[in-house]
Amino acid sequence: MQTPLIARRDIQFQLFEVLQAQALLQRERYREHSRETFEAALDTAVRIAEDLFAPHQRLGDEQEPRIEDGKVVLPDGVKAAVRAYADAGFLAASVDEAAGGMQLPVLVTQACLSVFRSANVATTSYVGLTASNANVIEKFGTDLQRKRYLPALRSGRFFGTMALTEPQAGSSLADLHTQATPMGDGRYRIKGQKVFISGGDHELGENIVHLVLARLADAPAGVRGISLFTVPKFHTDAQGQVGERNDVALAGLIHKCGWRGTTSTMLSFGENDACVGEMVGQPNDGLSCMFHMMNEARIGVGMGAIMLGYRGYLASLQYARERTQGRSPANRDPASPPLPLVAHADVRRMLLAQKCYVEGAYGLALYAAWLVDEQRTHTDAAQRQAAGLLLELLTPVVKSWPSQWCLEANSLAIQVLGGYGYTREYPVEQFWRDNRLNMIHEGTHGIQALDLLGRKVAMQDGAALAVMQPLVEGVVDNAMQQPLLKTHAQALRAAWQDVLGTVQALSAPLRTDREAVLANANLFLEAFGHTVLAWVWLRQATVAQQMLAFPVTDADEAFYRGKVQAAQWFFRWELPKVAPQLALLRSVDDSHHAMRDAWF
Amino acid sequence: MQTPLIARRDIQFQLFEVLQAQALLQRERYREHSRETFEAALDTAVRIAEDLFAPHQRLGDEQEPRIEDGKVVLPDGVKAAVRAYADAGFLAASVDEAAGGMQLPVLVTQACLSVFRSANVATTSYVGLTASNANVIEKFGTDLQRKRYLPALRSGRFFGTMALTEPQAGSSLADLHTQATPMGDGRYRIKGQKVFISGGDHELGENIVHLVLARLADAPAGVRGISLFTVPKFHTDAQGQVGERNDVALAGLIHKCGWRGTTSTMLSFGENDACVGEMVGQPNDGLSCMFHMMNEARIGVGMGAIMLGYRGYLASLQYARERTQGRSPANRDPASPPLPLVAHADVRRMLLAQKCYVEGAYGLALYAAWLVDEQRTHTDAAQRQAAGLLLELLTPVVKSWPSQWCLEANSLAIQVLGGYGYTREYPVEQFWRDNRLNMIHEGTHGIQALDLLGRKVAMQDGAALAVMQPLVEGVVDNAMQQPLLKTHAQALRAAWQDVLGTVQALSAPLRTDREAVLANANLFLEAFGHTVLAWVWLRQATVAQQMLAFPVTDADEAFYRGKVQAAQWFFRWELPKVAPQLALLRSVDDSHHAMRDAWF
Repeated sequence: MQTPLIARRDIQFQLFEVLQAQALLQRERYREHSRETFEAALDTAVRIAEDLFAPHQRLGDEQEPRIEDGKVVLPDGVKAAVRAYADAGFLAASVDEAAGGMQLPVLVTQACLSVFRSANVATTSYVGLTASNANVIEKFGTDLQRKRYLPALRSGRFFGTMALTEPQAGSSLADLHTQATPMGDGRYRIKGQKVFISGGDHELGENIVHLVLARLADAPAGVRGISLFTVPKFHTDAQGQVGERNDVALAGLIHKCGWRGTTSTMLSFGENDACVGEMVGQPNDGLSCMFHMMNEARIGVGMGAIMLGYRGYLASLQYARERTQGRSPANRDPASPPLPLVAHADVRRMLLAQKCYVEGAYGLALYAAWLVDEQRTHTDAAQRQAAGLLLELLTPVVKSWPSQWCLEANSLAIQVLGGYGYTREYPVEQFWRDNRLNMIHEGTHGIQALDLLGRKVAMQDGAALAVMQPLVEGVVDNAMQQPLLKTHAQALRAAWQDVLGTVQALSAPLRTDREAVLANANLFLEAFGHTVLAWVWLRQATVAQQMLAFPVTDADEAFYRGKVQAAQWFFRWELPKVAPQLALLRSVDDSHHAMRDAWF
Repeated sequence: MQTPLIARRDIQFQLFEVLQAQALLQRERYREHSRETFEAALDTAVRIAEDLFAPHQRLGDEQEPRIEDGKVVLPDGVKAAVRAYADAGFLAASVDEAAGGMQLPVLVTQACLSVFRSANVATTSYVGLTASNANVIEKFGTDLQRKRYLPALRSGRFFGTMALTEPQAGSSLADLHTQATPMGDGRYRIKGQKVFISGGDHELGENIVHLVLARLADAPAGVRGISLFTVPKFHTDAQGQVGERNDVALAGLIHKCGWRGTTSTMLSFGENDACVGEMVGQPNDGLSCMFHMMNEARIGVGMGAIMLGYRGYLASLQYARERTQGRSPANRDPASPPLPLVAHADVRRMLLAQKCYVEGAYGLALYAAWLVDEQRTHTDAAQRQAAGLLLELLTPVVKSWPSQWCLEANSLAIQVLGGYGYTREYPVEQFWRDNRLNMIHEGTHGIQALDLLGRKVAMQDGAALAVMQPLVEGVVDNAMQQPLLKTHAQALRAAWQDVLGTVQALSAPLRTDREAVLANANLFLEAFGHTVLAWVWLRQATVAQQMLAFPVTDADEAFYRGKVQAAQWFFRWELPKVAPQLALLRSVDDSHHAMRDAWF
């Protein structure tokens, strides 16, 4: 079964009809671009993704990375794919032209990246991590570090990782043990164990640059005592030429449930006390440097989850149109021809639910990418700051909501295919397995919930929610002009007020009984996430409904009607879940908080 | 990690404190038994499950069945396990003593079976299918068929399958093509293709008896023209001795996402026009015969889903107690020792949710088994009939609810283990993969929903709901005596009234606009399922609360308090989902029903 990678019409809708990407062309940074150059970048992404990423997507699952003669062997196809990606310039898609980049908006870059993620999320990880790694070095590195690493990372000669997690610490970065000891020449000896390092070892390029969190001997305990270091697999001179091996050893490979195409490694730094690293940024400031990469990575995780969901949706839709089976409940004539699956109401429910989850989440993630552009290029400083605040607020949702709901979409895709969907002869079960990782890596679901309720909504006296307030009202006001959307608009306004009221109601308990409130933070992540998605969907539906007032092609009419119908489904089937969640949250329910270990 | 198979204390609670299994000893059929013989059967099950089923549970996933020299090769350990199971008499656990069985209540039989499913759901499938197959032959077969097959099936010499599905028909049994042609001697030539036949070929015994649905040439179209046949892999004489190969060919193996230890086959019957079968039951009555097996199989599916969930819960609980990581949100001292995971509120939430799903569903499935005993052995005919009606009503829930929510439990178990949970070095990811099958086989989720709303609630003028009504009220009344449970009791009563009111409100639209109502049948399956589970949980909590009024050991006190706390969690976190679902159902929402293919 050849599954389409993307719905190009939806990308056009999201970029140019909803997010008005063409408005970015007014910005100084993007004025050399045009809608044509944006489309051309997408065309190139589609071509490379179809030709070189998609073909080994299943193979990457079947031929898990393995160690041969001390080297990590990846399945055929990965190297050619990442080579073509690099050669087409995607590793530097949003980088300054002066530095050899394409200087594309982050919005367009993420849209291109989404095509690759859809084709092969595992292979895309190698290049995605490398680009993020380079961004950290660009932002926090010294001139020498930039010169040494950036050209190589952005041309695909070198690859990058982020090495945070340690076996004993898991999510608790405060408990990192890896040590960094000054060598007296500005460099550091690194010693420690890291685990779950994606892309931690392979032969795709000449070198691998690890960004490693470690601790100086005199550093304060906890997260305020963590510094960041570049630790290359091979020592690298000032011109980016590779020399001897550094003391970084592959301690083992991790065998995962899905996402098998991305090698996940245990790395041992300094087994022979000869591992050399250089500090990036200031001492004890490593976590904030790393979070620069992490926030980008979190949007990437969300986008990965979305594209797995999206591809599963397209695959199950294709199957449901081609496969005939059964008749309508009212048809009692078994001699009548069977219907295509898509004609069955429950199958349509499962397809429409998937459409809601994936197209809604896609709109949200692209909006987050657009916020990065706003933050970087808006001519008004206050607007730049507002975009940054909103991005901070939405990042936990962009990471978590797709991880949860596009995983559910993948489960529905399996269900549409029935028994066949559960077999490895069809692609959807792999999407589901791959997607399960996303609630875990780059900060678990639980950590995102604590970040959102415990930090983001309250930061700067609720400044981020205050930024969002008029934006929600604006979408509501526009939708109120469309008779078909009025009820939805009222429902969004009510949900939004419920969110704000809940935040208000919790502000005192968050001071007096913080643990009890945060014990139920997951409820806020879910309820806020659904409210955000309702906002996204109402905006999409309003644009679609506005377009339907003009003469459109039959294909466009069907497309816009689908958007309006999907929004209706979201408002009727999903949004009503929010009010009971917020009510439960306000009650500061102690059911599990009061549960004792011995009672399990 | 050695994961406990079961919580024996919970089995005792469910069997002897909630379901009062000892009362069954009053029945003529079970009077030779005692609580001791019940416990002894469980002891034996635990011993064999631990020694022979659990050890190859992961191996069965890693070494998927494969074909060598035309034979299906299973991993080491399967044969010894099913041999020990048969030798201990479990294939005939609830069969008459006169026929060589143990004549155990179905309730106790299912409790024993649950231990094996927990240890290794895939290997247990071979014996579970065989026992069900034998039950069909016992009930509908001729004396000769019984003599030929039953002793062999019940001693583990032969194994059994159910061969319904065909490649072109999927869930639509009306479209089965397999043909049966009379040979003139009372036997039939069988010709056709079957797919997804679990245990369809292997070398575990001397023979495999397929129960095959096929069509006589003059049969009416649709499901009223299907007959049932025994088709052995090897011809079998009247004494059960095996002869030449029958014309049943292994056409291929199916490679699944999980549940890999159970070989799933494509079978070709009569490729050489020499496949011989014998009819079981009456011509064109095959589906109702098969449904005898199917209903048992559906309870089995539910129990399989539960035990995968249960084992995942126990594994994640064990991990959460042993693994230390992080501190409480209020603790700002990074030098203080880390806490066990179980001390973190969100981890407790994920553990308590799992406990709710698995122990609640376990109580429901055992209740269904108890209803079979009631149906078979109650001294009062009206009570036997009532038990049968209630069993019919609950079967879709017993099959579906655990398939959905114990799968969610498995996902939570992964989440508790974090990155480790996603690796194949830990057991929980396999439970999750295995469990995903259960929403598909033996009637998909969608089919269960149609069965429940379209048939079961309405059958005999709503007789089944009428049977359930006083039982729900009885549990509510008992709970009202316990101050701690009063709010829950009121909530259950309200949900139950909401269910009844919805059924009432839908009775007219179900006549006038049946398709539109049934398009949302999944909502009823979910809402009714949650209401049933609330009923189960309130009963468990009431028993626990009653026991807490007496002096109990510390261990028992902790156990009972856990039950009450889990019930509270269910009532506060889960039951509130029901009302919005029923409201949406009553609105006969047309969001996906009105969605057109072109709009996707």
